[in-house]
Amino acid sequence: MALIVQKFGGTSVGSIERIEQVADKVKKFRDQGTDLVVVLSAMSGETNRLIDLAKQITDHPVPRELDVIVSTGEQVTIALLTMALIKRGVPAVSYTGNQVRILTDSAHNKARILQIDDQKIRADLKAGRVVVVAGFQGVDEHGNITTLGRGGSDTTGVALAAALKADECQIYTDVDGVYTTDPRVVPQAQRLEKITFEEMLEMASLGSKVLQIRSVEFAGKYNVPLRVLHSFKEGPGTLITIDEEESMEQPIISGIAFNRDEAKLTIRGVPDTPGVAFKILGPISAANIEVDMIVQNVSHDNTTDFTFTVHRNEYEKAHSVLENTAREIGAREVIGDTNIAKVSIVGVGMRSHAGVASRMFEALAKESINIQMISTSEIKVSVVIEEKYLELAVRALHTAFELDAPARQGE
Amino acid sequence: MALIVQKFGGTSVGSIERIEQVADKVKKFRDQGTDLVVVLSAMSGETNRLIDLAKQITDHPVPRELDVIVSTGEQVTIALLTMALIKRGVPAVSYTGNQVRILTDSAHNKARILQIDDQKIRADLKAGRVVVVAGFQGVDEHGNITTLGRGGSDTTGVALAAALKADECQIYTDVDGVYTTDPRVVPQAQRLEKITFEEMLEMASLGSKVLQIRSVEFAGKYNVPLRVLHSFKEGPGTLITIDEEESMEQPIISGIAFNRDEAKLTIRGVPDTPGVAFKILGPISAANIEVDMIVQNVSHDNTTDFTFTVHRNEYEKAHSVLENTAREIGAREVIGDTNIAKVSIVGVGMRSHAGVASRMFEALAKESINIQMISTSEIKVSVVIEEKYLELAVRALHTAFELDAPARQGE
Repeated sequence: MALIVQKFGGTSVGSIERIEQVADKVKKFRDQGTDLVVVLSAMSGETNRLIDLAKQITDHPVPRELDVIVSTGEQVTIALLTMALIKRGVPAVSYTGNQVRILTDSAHNKARILQIDDQKIRADLKAGRVVVVAGFQGVDEHGNITTLGRGGSDTTGVALAAALKADECQIYTDVDGVYTTDPRVVPQAQRLEKITFEEMLEMASLGSKVLQIRSVEFAGKYNVPLRVLHSFKEGPGTLITIDEEESMEQPIISGIAFNRDEAKLTIRGVPDTPGVAFKILGPISAANIEVDMIVQNVSHDNTTDFTFTVHRNEYEKAHSVLENTAREIGAREVIGDTNIAKVSIVGVGMRSHAGVASRMFEALAKESINIQMISTSEIKVSVVIEEKYLELAVRALHTAFELDAPARQGE
Repeated sequence: MALIVQKFGGTSVGSIERIEQVADKVKKFRDQGTDLVVVLSAMSGETNRLIDLAKQITDHPVPRELDVIVSTGEQVTIALLTMALIKRGVPAVSYTGNQVRILTDSAHNKARILQIDDQKIRADLKAGRVVVVAGFQGVDEHGNITTLGRGGSDTTGVALAAALKADECQIYTDVDGVYTTDPRVVPQAQRLEKITFEEMLEMASLGSKVLQIRSVEFAGKYNVPLRVLHSFKEGPGTLITIDEEESMEQPIISGIAFNRDEAKLTIRGVPDTPGVAFKILGPISAANIEVDMIVQNVSHDNTTDFTFTVHRNEYEKAHSVLENTAREIGAREVIGDTNIAKVSIVGVGMRSHAGVASRMFEALAKESINIQMISTSEIKVSVVIEEKYLELAVRALHTAFELDAPARQGE
């Protein structure tokens, strides 16, 4: 019998009506003879309400106690869904993270799963019960309640699927799959039938918010087939799985991601001596500022320009750190720009296809969009452009890589 | 070092402000060098809100799952109070029923405590921490979350005090102690310094709502000194303890309880044969109706009258059961009365004093109050009277037994 782990997020269980709808959906799968483990988040808004209660006591709640409070959110939804299933004649039982025993480390508010005891769940499945598990939470070796941090319910789902060797982990959400790009920007964007873990990771890290990066990493590591589906619409969604050596048939590019959250900083006229990159980025890192893209041009006249991007929220901070550095190392000036956007093409297919980058640059040039920075990885090419050209660039690339044909056949 | 268990009810932790006040109070005790275990209820209204969520799914929630939901109420308050204590520089830690391990039977929604593991709590106390425990909840041998039923937090407090051999279990509530009678009826009613477990049990069962009967039974059984105090007013409250053989100095009567919740049913002209009481009460009990007072007069002409009281909510049901019985056994008629009230005098002192009952009857006669039923126990005399005379009767008895002297000395 097939075993599927289904995870429903906060908006999918955001009201009693929606919980009833989820119960209908689960029953339908169960009636088809599938063994089911269902992982739930808290009702949407509930986690924030609970955190707000704690914040009324103190701006810095003790992490252990904060976990005791926020873990109640999922505890309520699992029992409500279980009741709704039993009402429908579907035998079911709920478990908190502690009851399953989802063992985590003791890093409260951002714990990592160490081990999952599958005994109780297997016994329940064998007895014909649907098992409803609280996402986002676990327990450490001392019996303290822990939480995995925001989005942790996806990770719970994937970890359970891995532990139970489930046939599939289905993540139900408010979109019906992963798209070639954001349909709000490109109406011709298409749902992907399939995408590899690697591609999904790049898409997620580049701003596509469908899945938590951690859960995708986890799924890739344990090779758990992951499927993104819409909670309340029918459809096959998008399957995220390993690259099954079908690269000859795969499209070169799977999707186009973009991100408006970055800002660019350049330190110009840097004396080009060994160790200069560390002298520049060391203080940035010491100030806890994360750096994304880094570009250093070849030098001329023994000086070089050094450019990198940071999150836009940290632009001011990074700018002042860099001013200090410029004085110390005798650089000419620091310039910056917050009106930028990053556009990336992602696809495992580009590994075996030369010329992908140049095709990208050509498409942008045709629209007279100037490229400010370039960064590449094995399955991704990212460029930084002026923000106002973002939508134009995404549409141009979507067309250039033939993503907006009416439907891709044969997949 | 003295060890005290303090229990705060739902209204005492009903808002963030009140939780802060409780934290102030706990800190004050801690600063005096007392070891403290604090037991909390859910914020007032929260348990009802959670039950209401479940009822929106189904009128008959599965008891196991209902416990999973309602137990979250206390889980939130224990963490909030612990945060508030730590903010004040008081080391503290929270535990759910499962974390302590408060082992109960598996009777969901009305579980009974079987055993309490005191290891963790003792270690925390030794390390100087205040231990904050969720009341009302526990865990069965299979790891299922259980709740003790309404008012169960008092029982948790007493059970913890018994397990830890605490010096005292303090129940904080919205009254400043146990009174000789309801001050709303008799303004001269006085707070009792002390009352015995037996007396408290009678007072509670007769309508005084200060403490849950179960917690008093538990405290008496394990001889845990119990003190009722006001959450936010200073004062010694009332100590509930064993009768320390001081009966010569004790007042004869400790208090006067009353109850308007009963109704009276009489079956008249019952053929007086052996087993007739069972024939009458058997069907009542089979209908799950609880009977309080029972009176059967001596017979004349081989028939007798049989009278008993039930909760007013069950009067109609009991009446129709009794009508059937009357037909079957050939009784003359069934009459009933819902306009009654029960007034009781309670005191361990009456054991050694003859004439207590007659003094009661005399006081009522002086006010021309007719007595409809009488029932006595070792430390209590109850009478049923017409409801409209209730306040008059309570005041008359309060005076007759010298309870409204300005202050009783020497206690």
